[in-house]
Amino acid sequence: MNDQAARGRILLSVRGMDPQRWRDLLSRQRTVVLEPDGAEDPSIEYAAVWNHDPDVLTRLPNLKLIFSLGAGVDHVLSDPDLPDVPVIRIVAENLTQYMIEYVTWRVLDHHRQGFLYRTQQRDRVWRQPAQPPAGDVAVGIMGLGALGGAVAQALKALGFNINGWSRRARQMEGVNTFHGETGLTPFLEATDILVVLLPLTPATEGIVDYSVLKRLRRDGPLRGPCLINAGRGRLQRESDILKALDDGTLKEASLDVFEREPLDPQSPLWTHPHVFVTPHAAASSDPTHLVPLLLRQMEAYERGEPLRNVVDRDAGY
Amino acid sequence: MNDQAARGRILLSVRGMDPQRWRDLLSRQRTVVLEPDGAEDPSIEYAAVWNHDPDVLTRLPNLKLIFSLGAGVDHVLSDPDLPDVPVIRIVAENLTQYMIEYVTWRVLDHHRQGFLYRTQQRDRVWRQPAQPPAGDVAVGIMGLGALGGAVAQALKALGFNINGWSRRARQMEGVNTFHGETGLTPFLEATDILVVLLPLTPATEGIVDYSVLKRLRRDGPLRGPCLINAGRGRLQRESDILKALDDGTLKEASLDVFEREPLDPQSPLWTHPHVFVTPHAAASSDPTHLVPLLLRQMEAYERGEPLRNVVDRDAGY
Repeated sequence: MNDQAARGRILLSVRGMDPQRWRDLLSRQRTVVLEPDGAEDPSIEYAAVWNHDPDVLTRLPNLKLIFSLGAGVDHVLSDPDLPDVPVIRIVAENLTQYMIEYVTWRVLDHHRQGFLYRTQQRDRVWRQPAQPPAGDVAVGIMGLGALGGAVAQALKALGFNINGWSRRARQMEGVNTFHGETGLTPFLEATDILVVLLPLTPATEGIVDYSVLKRLRRDGPLRGPCLINAGRGRLQRESDILKALDDGTLKEASLDVFEREPLDPQSPLWTHPHVFVTPHAAASSDPTHLVPLLLRQMEAYERGEPLRNVVDRDAGY
Repeated sequence: MNDQAARGRILLSVRGMDPQRWRDLLSRQRTVVLEPDGAEDPSIEYAAVWNHDPDVLTRLPNLKLIFSLGAGVDHVLSDPDLPDVPVIRIVAENLTQYMIEYVTWRVLDHHRQGFLYRTQQRDRVWRQPAQPPAGDVAVGIMGLGALGGAVAQALKALGFNINGWSRRARQMEGVNTFHGETGLTPFLEATDILVVLLPLTPATEGIVDYSVLKRLRRDGPLRGPCLINAGRGRLQRESDILKALDDGTLKEASLDVFEREPLDPQSPLWTHPHVFVTPHAAASSDPTHLVPLLLRQMEAYERGEPLRNVVDRDAGY
């Protein structure tokens, strides 16, 4: 259908996930070269990457754009020799939808006492604990970008009170917004369920530490605060989370991301009775939905149209 | 503040839950008589009941209204000697809110594969199964009254496709509606997650049986249908649910209600790996929110205003 040979080729460089479906779908319109092939190849104009090998990109003489195959770009920007071409972030509606589902699911599981009910079921206990309505509970969202904003609106519609914190000042309909270092303490002190959706940057790395968990509302209707991290693993200090769970500072946690992934089989998070673990599955990059977005961006670029969702390297997202 | 002695008194008759908070809150405005006291008392004009003793109500010479302390009224109408006075059903916004939370929580837990992920966590398995978005999944709601309608809109907002079935024809914005005996099969065949919110009447008793479960969509994106019953336990045949789970007809079930409550400690539902049990806690009647509604209805009645939420005894709800 198309003259593939005449079009800019794509280098596919992924680690920690299976490249097969990406290659199959991208190959329908363009020639795809799978790393480690492709070095020095002047016909390669695009790189589609996930945890790429830093050696590869520098050796592409005609590289024009780099695409990150997920919402985060820290895995791209951490390459010290990253070529000076635009990095494009994936902003798929589908990805936002998945994140809304995951966070709503986890907020409701903490709010509706899933941990307690699963224990009661195991012990065959028929007992109804007090249940506050959503309108008595405050969810605090760290990170008010495309994902955080959409999640805030979905939870608001279910009746929760929503606090939002971002590094820079933002206004958002129906959300009590806080920002910067000075806004962090009042934000945390008004929050029962903390949802972390920040980008990973030098300024946010390790931000979810004991001092943050300690400031969450202790005397709220859920009788202890809960943590949900669906952003990046290196935003959190896992030893601090465990300490906070064990000394009663934190009631429960739902963690989709970890300092090192896959999560070490020896990590005590797997077996902690108040932790729910998912394998970085909150909002998977589904090639079926994302590949068409990538190909459309390449075509738009070749027609000379402006690029969308270009990463600000200084900000880190 | 008010002249309690001059106002119609309330008989409180509850079994299976603690009457204390109901009594305390109702007593702030009217004299409350706790069953078994009150027989033959001509000053008692109202009865507030939950699984009441059938002997009591017939012996109140001036009874004017009966209030059910929950959304269902089957526990009232099952009294063969029920006095011929209006029975008022509680339609509390709060109760609807609780039901939205519970059903949304359970739908998301089935949709986002909570059962699988909890098993993976137990086995320390890091694996991402395929995850369809909500837009590929159809939730079918049996019962489109105040609760069913509100639940439908909440799930629609999260992106699910919504089917609705009711005994009589209904139209509802954004919902594919079916009705009656002839509508049941096409409704079930288009449904991945079945949510039961029907009233319990002679026509609906035992409706959730093997033949219903067998008609649910088998080849849907969740690779097997799921059942959520947040209505009444006697709508379901538990032996059929267990059979359907064990032969692969049904993938998973979330049950908040049971044929007999409390659920027998010997029931295999407690330990079934694909069943989630809660103790009739989806939408508890919280006296703090419901007592003011009751008292307002009594005052309106005494001013000669029309009654709201009167039960149709022939329909059974």
